[in-house]
Amino acid sequence: MLIGVDWGTSRLRAYLVSDDGTVIDRTESEAGLMRVGEGGFEPALAAAVGPWRAAHPDAPIVMSGMVGSRQGWVEAPYVATPADLDAIAAAVIAVPTDGLGDVVIVPGVAIGIAGDTFADVMRGEEAEVFGALDALGRDDGLFILPGTHSKWVTVEAGAITGFHTYMTGDVYAALAGHTILSKMFGTDPGDGAGFARGLDAARGMSAPGDLLNRLFAIRAEGLMGRLADDDVPGFLSGLLIGAEVASAAADAREAFVIGASDLAGRYHDALAAFGVAAITVPSESATRCHARIARARAR
Amino acid sequence: MLIGVDWGTSRLRAYLVSDDGTVIDRTESEAGLMRVGEGGFEPALAAAVGPWRAAHPDAPIVMSGMVGSRQGWVEAPYVATPADLDAIAAAVIAVPTDGLGDVVIVPGVAIGIAGDTFADVMRGEEAEVFGALDALGRDDGLFILPGTHSKWVTVEAGAITGFHTYMTGDVYAALAGHTILSKMFGTDPGDGAGFARGLDAARGMSAPGDLLNRLFAIRAEGLMGRLADDDVPGFLSGLLIGAEVASAAADAREAFVIGASDLAGRYHDALAAFGVAAITVPSESATRCHARIARARAR
Repeated sequence: MLIGVDWGTSRLRAYLVSDDGTVIDRTESEAGLMRVGEGGFEPALAAAVGPWRAAHPDAPIVMSGMVGSRQGWVEAPYVATPADLDAIAAAVIAVPTDGLGDVVIVPGVAIGIAGDTFADVMRGEEAEVFGALDALGRDDGLFILPGTHSKWVTVEAGAITGFHTYMTGDVYAALAGHTILSKMFGTDPGDGAGFARGLDAARGMSAPGDLLNRLFAIRAEGLMGRLADDDVPGFLSGLLIGAEVASAAADAREAFVIGASDLAGRYHDALAAFGVAAITVPSESATRCHARIARARAR
Repeated sequence: MLIGVDWGTSRLRAYLVSDDGTVIDRTESEAGLMRVGEGGFEPALAAAVGPWRAAHPDAPIVMSGMVGSRQGWVEAPYVATPADLDAIAAAVIAVPTDGLGDVVIVPGVAIGIAGDTFADVMRGEEAEVFGALDALGRDDGLFILPGTHSKWVTVEAGAITGFHTYMTGDVYAALAGHTILSKMFGTDPGDGAGFARGLDAARGMSAPGDLLNRLFAIRAEGLMGRLADDDVPGFLSGLLIGAEVASAAADAREAFVIGASDLAGRYHDALAAFGVAAITVPSESATRCHARIARARAR
């Protein structure tokens, strides 16, 4: 038996998992890092998994996500790429607790720790990727984790060899709420015509800075009465996600989208528009990674 | 004698100009469209130019800028490209007033009124461009008007034949204040090293969506201790302006930057980094356009 925890900035998700990786029970709360500060981590974890711990005193608790960041419970230093599951399992950090027994934090993965490429970092997504590999029975692929800061992760021969984060969701919210576009933001999601037009606009770009021009084109098209306010949110989303897909999947034929949210659906549509096959992977597969790490540690 | 007025969203600037285009007197206030609403335009103009009007009752008042927009005093419909000074002079809109005499508004210029390119619009910048042409004794060139929404205007044989607006300044403020980058924004402008690194990062991009990734690279470089908070504002500015320059000046050898603000200085540096010669044009040259329009109307 294993207790797997995905502990991020805004949410804590915990799973009771059997030795074969089956999720037996789950719980979720808003006890993310934004709400839980120093001294509050063990009580928050105890509140989430206390009954499971009492019933299974020897089950290891394996946690991934921002709980291992500098602002988290205990910092788990990043593992450098290429990073396979053995390297990650070897770098887990044990967390001393008063009464919760065996608790470890899975490290994040980083590129550019040394060297001259741009740095990039992940925490928690590595567990979802290794879980997805386990669920799919694969040891390679291009994996997408949609979100405020979406991750595109390349896996080769069982190791994360590279990845890129795109600040797309964060940028969308800032542009929607705090630029001139906010004055023309409709509230009716409409029929999706705006999103398709945004994807078209993304396809028509060539230089990196073209994006800064197409954002104003949204405003000008509206002034000319050629873009309805209700189509503006979709257009902006299509433009940004389309630009992201064109940048990140330029050489890909297929990509695995982790999760089945509305946002994941938009990535499916954008990938299709750029001729890339999109395959959905269930989002709870991080527990499969937690189970594999527990097994690796038990060896 | 002529009274030229540059009336925008946030400011009203007025100039008393001799027949040969010399600025004799000037005044400026915060009576922009944000502060002046319906019914308030004539009193605001009278407050700004009343003494000049009393001394020169026959001087035409020529206004350009957002005062001619739908939210302004009287809407002056856009002139389509290609637009030369005669076309613009022929399309000025007379404004009826109770006691201010001959008052006209210069129309803006638009592309994409019909047709399938993206729409783009300007109001006020056309006067600055025609004024700059007059000041320089030229009838062609690539002109840049830095600002919240910067404009790149192509002039051929005395006519505006095309232009592109980049939402760069607006985007900068939204990203700086309302994304994860806001948490690492230093306040000391430093030695400009951040701006130079941002330009370098812009030069290294190839696909339009790369920008969404490089924004997160700012965050990751900071986490790795390789980018100081005080260099983040400069880096973000260099990244965005560099991307804009690479998009807008790809085929240019020289460009005329209108105005001598700090922001204009950054465009000079960015143009230099991309191998484009930058020439400064004084920002008060719009009055030269106002004077030429007054002369064209008097013919």
